[in-house]
Amino acid sequence: MSLPNLHTDTICALATPPGVGGLAVIRVSGPRAIEFCDQYFVGKTSLSEAETHTIHYGWWVVEESRVDAITATVFHSPHSYTGEHVVEIGCHGGVFVVEQIIGSLLRAHARLADPGEFTRRAFMNRKLDLTQAEAVADLIHSQSRVGSQIAARQLAGGFTRRLAALRQQLLDVIGLLELELDFSDEDVEFVNRSAFRDSIAQILREIEATTASAHGAEVLRSGFHVAVVGYPNAGKSSLFNALLQRNRAIVSDIPGTTRDYLSETLFIEGYAVHVSDTAGLRETSDQIELQGINITSSLIEQSDLVLVVNDASSGFTNSDPLVADLRVRFPEIEIVVAQNKIDLVTSETDSPQSLDSIRCSAITETGLQHIREAFFDRVRKSTSSVSDVLLNSRQMQLLKLAGNDVRSCQIGLEQGLSADFLAVDIRSAIRLFGDITGDSWNPDVLDSVFSRFCIGK
Amino acid sequence: MSLPNLHTDTICALATPPGVGGLAVIRVSGPRAIEFCDQYFVGKTSLSEAETHTIHYGWWVVEESRVDAITATVFHSPHSYTGEHVVEIGCHGGVFVVEQIIGSLLRAHARLADPGEFTRRAFMNRKLDLTQAEAVADLIHSQSRVGSQIAARQLAGGFTRRLAALRQQLLDVIGLLELELDFSDEDVEFVNRSAFRDSIAQILREIEATTASAHGAEVLRSGFHVAVVGYPNAGKSSLFNALLQRNRAIVSDIPGTTRDYLSETLFIEGYAVHVSDTAGLRETSDQIELQGINITSSLIEQSDLVLVVNDASSGFTNSDPLVADLRVRFPEIEIVVAQNKIDLVTSETDSPQSLDSIRCSAITETGLQHIREAFFDRVRKSTSSVSDVLLNSRQMQLLKLAGNDVRSCQIGLEQGLSADFLAVDIRSAIRLFGDITGDSWNPDVLDSVFSRFCIGK
Repeated sequence: MSLPNLHTDTICALATPPGVGGLAVIRVSGPRAIEFCDQYFVGKTSLSEAETHTIHYGWWVVEESRVDAITATVFHSPHSYTGEHVVEIGCHGGVFVVEQIIGSLLRAHARLADPGEFTRRAFMNRKLDLTQAEAVADLIHSQSRVGSQIAARQLAGGFTRRLAALRQQLLDVIGLLELELDFSDEDVEFVNRSAFRDSIAQILREIEATTASAHGAEVLRSGFHVAVVGYPNAGKSSLFNALLQRNRAIVSDIPGTTRDYLSETLFIEGYAVHVSDTAGLRETSDQIELQGINITSSLIEQSDLVLVVNDASSGFTNSDPLVADLRVRFPEIEIVVAQNKIDLVTSETDSPQSLDSIRCSAITETGLQHIREAFFDRVRKSTSSVSDVLLNSRQMQLLKLAGNDVRSCQIGLEQGLSADFLAVDIRSAIRLFGDITGDSWNPDVLDSVFSRFCIGK
Repeated sequence: MSLPNLHTDTICALATPPGVGGLAVIRVSGPRAIEFCDQYFVGKTSLSEAETHTIHYGWWVVEESRVDAITATVFHSPHSYTGEHVVEIGCHGGVFVVEQIIGSLLRAHARLADPGEFTRRAFMNRKLDLTQAEAVADLIHSQSRVGSQIAARQLAGGFTRRLAALRQQLLDVIGLLELELDFSDEDVEFVNRSAFRDSIAQILREIEATTASAHGAEVLRSGFHVAVVGYPNAGKSSLFNALLQRNRAIVSDIPGTTRDYLSETLFIEGYAVHVSDTAGLRETSDQIELQGINITSSLIEQSDLVLVVNDASSGFTNSDPLVADLRVRFPEIEIVVAQNKIDLVTSETDSPQSLDSIRCSAITETGLQHIREAFFDRVRKSTSSVSDVLLNSRQMQLLKLAGNDVRSCQIGLEQGLSADFLAVDIRSAIRLFGDITGDSWNPDVLDSVFSRFCIGK
């Protein structure tokens, strides 16, 4: 499929976050970007005379009225983010300044960019492949420092190179198979079937290792989810508040995070941990009956960890039935027990203390640090498999399909199928790799990829 | 007073609004700005070799780990916003990208900038005067398109030039007075006292015209305030909602605007109109008894207009006692009566319709456009005196003091006081003009001016 690399229209959008700030940047891209800006820019030189990669101070003037003192950075095609002519207008971050500048560009017949359209154009002009474009979205939305760093490596082409290496291995296999096919009537096996088998197995291992990192990638991308549950009066809400209280100063309010009044985000060593207090859900949401307590099972299902709050002053084993029930219902989800109200426990005998059962008190703040460490420990474990790819569900599905093809080839090999049968699987896997990087693409896939983006990127 | 024009430390801050977006810009300014960035920038050339006003693509790399693909724009002192060496780092607008880049700059011994510190340095380095610096804050925070435009004119030096012209007139006067003083023992009046009198009167008129624009400037800066009041069941809340409903799409959520659940902002022709529904205040705030209705008098005091909602179906004059009472208590504040529930009025006789009394219905939406027009009419009237200065309270106080001095000179002139007495007043006025533009300044004034700024500007 051929890639159109020219867009006839010129697009513009606010590239920086909306709201009031010192500086706002409006990006303009397309064949007429420089021309449109020159209609309003008044500086020492016109922008059409400016060299590429230079910045110019001047005024944005609309109908003889000065809108703002601005800077205009000029990029000539193809040496820009999108590959097109680009002007980046740096203006004061006032709502009405931005409104007036964008308004004037629209009157000059620029069009407001769709979400992700700048990056989509960069992709169309082969400035980056699809996994790199997806890394851009991850860099912007990542909920952890490590996730951000891995997205940067992916943007630098880490995943592209790994896929290219796998693809090359598959191409080598195809080459041999085709050679065999050319001579098939002579019934000669050119391929060393044992080396072939090893090669296939190795590709399969690598694909499986990558798909196994998907859950960790999701934690790095969106954060780690903890549900706080417990019998009534175990002190869930107090513990929830105590856990967040000391960290409130470093809780960052990231737009786009799904939040309600019951959920708060804690940053531990650069990882976002979303803690949800199920106590308040009791009155408002639809519920299931679980061992006599109402908790929301869908919240637990979506969690990476359940923190069971036990009232230790009523006995350390008080919540064991609840824990047992959770283990049956949600066998995949880890459980940590917070032995709360430890300040009310006089006898110290038989009091458990481990990474799974932590003595604590919301009142005296005993043990809170241990709980945070327990969270951090689980976050690290669940993300340890992620190296230089933040696999997303689109990529994972394609990789799994490619893995199925390779596995099918592997089975065919065991069954002694002929080269033409085996080649079908390998060719399909290669095509799927092309879908991942966007070598082959269709508009629907692009729409879905770039819908994750914000406007202005 | 001498202006120090060298700062030994290098500062950095996020210049764009916080939050997630396509692009974020981190500004670094000071003697070591370029050097610090070079420690992390990996591109085709080092930034220290880059020419001024050029932009460079590369990677921000911390301890061999890529943080992000960035652009670095280099400005050499004195040709920058602050007058110092400046690097502007354009990175992806993710929370953790920004955190890592700023963190690495701090480790290189850059310091996090105070609010307004970049502009303060620009002022110290004589890149702009104090009224221009204040215009920057107004451009960023302005709550109206017109206010933004006037701030741009002020930034372009409109106010500076006007003050300089007035100051020159005062200096001319001083020149003549001093000539007279030099020859005072000869008892000769060199100054043409009649022309002198005219000159003083003209200066005074100009000062007064400028101070008279202060209220309008405040409306342009912060918006126009409307309080909705009325007897119970007049339909205040319904009208409030109906007024805002149709405009909800263009209601902009500007951080920093004081809001509670009773106050919404309506944008009419680029002006912010903050409408407060007093109905909901009844239960929650401290109140005064006003003609049998509880309304918050402090809210009305801070308003530019009161919209009295009358239940026209109970009679068009139903709320007249309330209107009369408001006129007595708040003689300065304009009142518009909304004759609500007009859909329930069958007889059309005697129904008033004017800019002060508008027939309307929250249900059928009759007359809502008239109410908006009435708001717009009052906004325009109250801001008509503002031309190229958004006078703020600091400037107004200084201008008023200067006006007092000039008036004192005028009175002295009438009383036949001698030149040395008159010169004292004029010199004081000149000094006050210098305080307005910042020719003379003290740290407290600067602290107060720049505390209005956001970090990164």
